[in-house]
Amino acid sequence: MRVAVDAMGGDNAPSVEVAGAVAACREFGIAITLVGDRARLEAELTKHQTNGLDIDIFHASEVVGMHDSASDAVRKKKNSSVRLAFELVKEGKACAAVSAGNSGATMAAGMVVLKRINGIERPAIAQIFPTLKGQTLVLDVGGNVDCKPQHLAQFAIMGEVYAHYAMGITNPAVGLLSNGEEDSKGNELTRETNAILRETSLNYAGYVEGRDIFKGTVEVVVCDGFVGNVVLKLSEGLAEAAATMLKEEIVKSWVSKLGYLFVHGAFRRFKKIVDYAEYGGAPLLGINGVGMICHGGSNVKAIKNAVRFAHDYAKSGVTERVAEKLSENSMVNMQRDNLKTQAVA
Amino acid sequence: MRVAVDAMGGDNAPSVEVAGAVAACREFGIAITLVGDRARLEAELTKHQTNGLDIDIFHASEVVGMHDSASDAVRKKKNSSVRLAFELVKEGKACAAVSAGNSGATMAAGMVVLKRINGIERPAIAQIFPTLKGQTLVLDVGGNVDCKPQHLAQFAIMGEVYAHYAMGITNPAVGLLSNGEEDSKGNELTRETNAILRETSLNYAGYVEGRDIFKGTVEVVVCDGFVGNVVLKLSEGLAEAAATMLKEEIVKSWVSKLGYLFVHGAFRRFKKIVDYAEYGGAPLLGINGVGMICHGGSNVKAIKNAVRFAHDYAKSGVTERVAEKLSENSMVNMQRDNLKTQAVA
Repeated sequence: MRVAVDAMGGDNAPSVEVAGAVAACREFGIAITLVGDRARLEAELTKHQTNGLDIDIFHASEVVGMHDSASDAVRKKKNSSVRLAFELVKEGKACAAVSAGNSGATMAAGMVVLKRINGIERPAIAQIFPTLKGQTLVLDVGGNVDCKPQHLAQFAIMGEVYAHYAMGITNPAVGLLSNGEEDSKGNELTRETNAILRETSLNYAGYVEGRDIFKGTVEVVVCDGFVGNVVLKLSEGLAEAAATMLKEEIVKSWVSKLGYLFVHGAFRRFKKIVDYAEYGGAPLLGINGVGMICHGGSNVKAIKNAVRFAHDYAKSGVTERVAEKLSENSMVNMQRDNLKTQAVA
Repeated sequence: MRVAVDAMGGDNAPSVEVAGAVAACREFGIAITLVGDRARLEAELTKHQTNGLDIDIFHASEVVGMHDSASDAVRKKKNSSVRLAFELVKEGKACAAVSAGNSGATMAAGMVVLKRINGIERPAIAQIFPTLKGQTLVLDVGGNVDCKPQHLAQFAIMGEVYAHYAMGITNPAVGLLSNGEEDSKGNELTRETNAILRETSLNYAGYVEGRDIFKGTVEVVVCDGFVGNVVLKLSEGLAEAAATMLKEEIVKSWVSKLGYLFVHGAFRRFKKIVDYAEYGGAPLLGINGVGMICHGGSNVKAIKNAVRFAHDYAKSGVTERVAEKLSENSMVNMQRDNLKTQAVA
């Protein structure tokens, strides 16, 4: 099954997208449909050796810019590359859509075209973080800034299913991000969510703290999209700042400059562990189909890996499992209270 | 003027507290009152050379434990070391109180004994972070988990005044932590706060993102205590995890092990930059007096530096300046809307 790549979205589109898609096709044997301006993409493809590779182009006349508002982009630009990538998924011509463009617009396009999974109020963007024990999935890191407890509980279900079926983690533990471990901690939102999650069939570990993310205390960390976005960008910023500070210290003496030559390999391997390009992209969860959202500044490796993870995600059956898990856990259903009221009336 | 040190609060009390206080007295010439069990403190002091040092003991028969609830601790344990340390400040016998005990209880004791600055709804705990450009103050990192826009606006004022008068930063820029730079980003809380802050006399830079904290884009970053606590603990956790991962990579080969000997000094200097002990403690802002809250696991250096920063803070006149700045900026006054309504009626 083909993967549809929005070739026009990223900061360095279409060259990075095309190169990444070609690499994924060559290395992993994944068939690709590049979505975007046909003439530009044909020209771009001539730069690569594509003999024997199953890559085709689906023309899109419009592009959603980084500064377009998400909803406007989806409603006004019906022929945008990101929207048409999801249309290919809807029509069964692709198993997944990958975009490094405007992430709000990618999420909106996924929702509008593929619709939400029945019972899911808000799709979420999940991000994989490297930890001392392996990997932890944090969600939402996207656009759901003002959430209700049921939204977070639904994120927990989607995160558990993705960690299990797409990341291969058996019985992943789920934690709720808070300002302390005791149930008495948290804010209004987390306290209500905590109570709901205790009722679910999830392997729920209760509250976790900021430091638990990189420790790898649990495999899934749930938070609202405002907090998740702060977590994501703080982590990127701290890693960069620490590397810069350490280098500034190292170049201060010739002894440590010399030593750096010897530890350079270790630094490179360390960087690989924390490099977002290794994880390719962030899965979009909660829609009827597969979307992978990449960093606007993605490099070729990030696009290549995103295509691979999108393909794995499509094979994993996550979408169907989320629907099943939702029906087993009616306490996360936002309509439940309304239904109860109606039944009584 | 003396600094009152709660000698019973921290994880390693009273030995670390006494050693830190003795060091501060010796190195910086700051007079100390140790607050706690007289017999234990006298015994502890015999381990140190205190000839010629101005250190006395104020007896406290009770201790607030880490698991005591903050309000219970303050109401029930009226003779606790932390509460009596603030009583000494109230009576003018000390210029500041320092505690490495239960931070919620320290905040509560400060509020109950010294009362809030007129117009301040919620005191806040501020934390200094090292950045690529110097230092940035983040507040609240403490217990204010559910905030209103005026609370955050008041934190902004307290943070600016502290950065200016206690940290010596001229015209510090203040940013509001959000999930994006554009005014259209943020959640309900930050959008309302953003509008209020634009009206104030502060040097307000608008929204900043997680990555801006360590970049040092602004000198003061404002957020609610839930988000601030996640920021604080995530930063600690990531720094520790990164160091562990890097060391694991380094010991994998003898070449990099050898190289590590040469860069070791740079690592040590780097650690010093990010080490919380250098900053000693987190100022408690918004009460009529000076409190400094230290990490429960503080070492001797952290206590010593906290005493010094508490002493500087007391001399800085921050408390008076906060009151002035508040009166210049009536839009952050929570009673303003009520007063308006009354005036109209």
